[in-house]
Amino acid sequence: MRGNVIVGQSGGPTSVINSSLVGVFKTAKDRGAGKVYGMLHGIKGLLDNQFVDLSEHIKTDLDIDLLKRTPSSFLGSCRYKLPEICDNREVYDQIFAKLKELDIEAFFYIGGNDSMDTIKKLSDYAVLVNSDIKFMGVPKTIDNDLATTDHTPGFGSAAKYIAAVTKEIIRDGLVYDYPTITIMEIMGRNAGWLTAATALSKGEDCEGVDMIFLPEVPFNIDKFMERVKTLSKEKSSIVIAISEGIKLEDGRYVFELADHVEFTDAFGHKQLSGSSKFLADKVGAELGVKTRAIELSTLQRCAAHMTSRVDITEAFQVGGAAVKAAFEGESGRVIVLDRVSEDPYICTTSSQDVHKIANIEKKVPLDWIINDGTFVSDELIHYIRPLIQAELSPVMVDGLPRHLKLSL
Amino acid sequence: MRGNVIVGQSGGPTSVINSSLVGVFKTAKDRGAGKVYGMLHGIKGLLDNQFVDLSEHIKTDLDIDLLKRTPSSFLGSCRYKLPEICDNREVYDQIFAKLKELDIEAFFYIGGNDSMDTIKKLSDYAVLVNSDIKFMGVPKTIDNDLATTDHTPGFGSAAKYIAAVTKEIIRDGLVYDYPTITIMEIMGRNAGWLTAATALSKGEDCEGVDMIFLPEVPFNIDKFMERVKTLSKEKSSIVIAISEGIKLEDGRYVFELADHVEFTDAFGHKQLSGSSKFLADKVGAELGVKTRAIELSTLQRCAAHMTSRVDITEAFQVGGAAVKAAFEGESGRVIVLDRVSEDPYICTTSSQDVHKIANIEKKVPLDWIINDGTFVSDELIHYIRPLIQAELSPVMVDGLPRHLKLSL
Repeated sequence: MRGNVIVGQSGGPTSVINSSLVGVFKTAKDRGAGKVYGMLHGIKGLLDNQFVDLSEHIKTDLDIDLLKRTPSSFLGSCRYKLPEICDNREVYDQIFAKLKELDIEAFFYIGGNDSMDTIKKLSDYAVLVNSDIKFMGVPKTIDNDLATTDHTPGFGSAAKYIAAVTKEIIRDGLVYDYPTITIMEIMGRNAGWLTAATALSKGEDCEGVDMIFLPEVPFNIDKFMERVKTLSKEKSSIVIAISEGIKLEDGRYVFELADHVEFTDAFGHKQLSGSSKFLADKVGAELGVKTRAIELSTLQRCAAHMTSRVDITEAFQVGGAAVKAAFEGESGRVIVLDRVSEDPYICTTSSQDVHKIANIEKKVPLDWIINDGTFVSDELIHYIRPLIQAELSPVMVDGLPRHLKLSL
Repeated sequence: MRGNVIVGQSGGPTSVINSSLVGVFKTAKDRGAGKVYGMLHGIKGLLDNQFVDLSEHIKTDLDIDLLKRTPSSFLGSCRYKLPEICDNREVYDQIFAKLKELDIEAFFYIGGNDSMDTIKKLSDYAVLVNSDIKFMGVPKTIDNDLATTDHTPGFGSAAKYIAAVTKEIIRDGLVYDYPTITIMEIMGRNAGWLTAATALSKGEDCEGVDMIFLPEVPFNIDKFMERVKTLSKEKSSIVIAISEGIKLEDGRYVFELADHVEFTDAFGHKQLSGSSKFLADKVGAELGVKTRAIELSTLQRCAAHMTSRVDITEAFQVGGAAVKAAFEGESGRVIVLDRVSEDPYICTTSSQDVHKIANIEKKVPLDWIINDGTFVSDELIHYIRPLIQAELSPVMVDGLPRHLKLSL
């Protein structure tokens, strides 16, 4: 007789993070779990006694299919970092008491590298207090910056959306008979995987983007302006992709060069956007051509109307694999994706020690960044291409994609 | 025996402007036209001797289906305004000589109200010089601001895309357990139709946007700040839609209040964007909450991966109807859409005198703007809803929507 399980979502949302939630829910139910609880707003919700019995919210097969297609974390998210165990055992005792009270056998956390820190600490604490509750991490992040996994669920759909709208933006730029320069700004503070996905726009029906700048390589404004000038002599419509996180040699973000973006939010974080606007204004002023800055903003992480079927399926699979592993006795581990074959693309799951993953950022290898830091290699394009394949059509109701809403 | 016909595209592109091009091409061919020429970059291309034989570029049924799904003007566009006939007859003589040389029987122009000015002048000139060439306008604009037509092809798909991503953005805003305020900036300089489409996001699975500000009503910053403050006491996640063209009582655009947007492009046009950023910064600074500005930018006019089937079909129909009308002897007219039944939605085409359409902007009726200028009425939602119905799936190749590319 199995006990109950609990699952939470943490960090930034993705288009397919709920497919992983469904993977955990359905697999746990299928394998005989009692209740499947959902923490609201991650571990913070558990500490605040905020959780739901998921069976009361996912009632039918249609609900399951709607939830797979629902963007943004169904259960809500948080960016809460547990204290070091040596600094504050009280919060751990509180969590474990709560888990005991709920008769929890396994705890699942769907998140990125910050969230895996939670799994690391909780599983460490379980060893310390000799608890047999299993703690498993389920990977997700559009940023694709998790270590030891071939790629992360969420990345493929974001990459597909970015590549598709890049094609559309390139076509839009071709329409007029005067020069235009468009600068697209893509998410990714330290890792350029998503920005690199703009390279997939190139094909038989599209010339692709002209230059790509990732945060892995220092950005030189003068060289950039020189390159744009040269390019503008060769062609009329230019589209350039930059990462929101591009930095100068001296470590400053490019958007910090603009006078008007000293703005920090309520948490003291610099708003990480504005580089495309700064560069578009500069190019427009110096070259006297029409420029446009396009920030894809949150659309790239929530555009569930355009997901990759490969991605949404893998997102489900890592959720299911986490349950299977926990029920077989694993703990303190994270499910990862292993690419076992390139062509045909075949990917399986395995599990890795969470200590090898938590808090580590995987960046784009420097030898995949070519042309003096202005483009990405064919290897990188071949790496991403299988991850954007095939579709899962939205369920359309009265003209719009239908989602599953959590009613509290 | 029919002569040849020529067709051009003008003004801003839409997701479905090429469906109208296909409507002209296919109907002209089906009704026995000789060659179907396409002007490159509109009337300007004709003056520069830049045109193609469309049969050399649309060769198969697959090409036709790809072209229907290809965003942005296949033939390129222009924003060229013909001189008044009394000021410069030379350019008209040049155009008519070229049309005669090409044995043109009918001339079709796909465009918005500025472009219809071209049809007006050319058909007036035809009367003046006793030419029997027919000149017909084919309506298109995402802005939906054309007079005498129930709505314009291009609007329905843009409205569908906007409503769909609004749902996704609202869900994204709900994810965290702290307050967030998102301000979405939608196209529409003087008419708020597209911004109003954000209201369609509301439904069983979505609470919808909290406020909507259209350019038809003067925008008062102090009242806006008061309202946001009040709202932020009631709920944690707020999403507000504004038109890029919102103006203060004194006539200045809201984005002109920001220090940093004095930038004008190479043509002396003010860049019509930045209002959301200005307002988001102001709200963030004064309320101390996390804010985000999202400009949908050109995506709303080129997101052909998410079109309305009603819209793309009507776009085809107005193209076909223009050919039929011209071949039956009409000239100096524009095809319009007539809604003959609301439920079930039925729409037919007829033609209108171009003099009643050219250069006139249809705005949102003031009695459809409610709650002291902060929302839109159910009538407006019911007006838009039928126009976003059903889908035409993109043709996906290797994970991305395939387009038809003009190879010169």
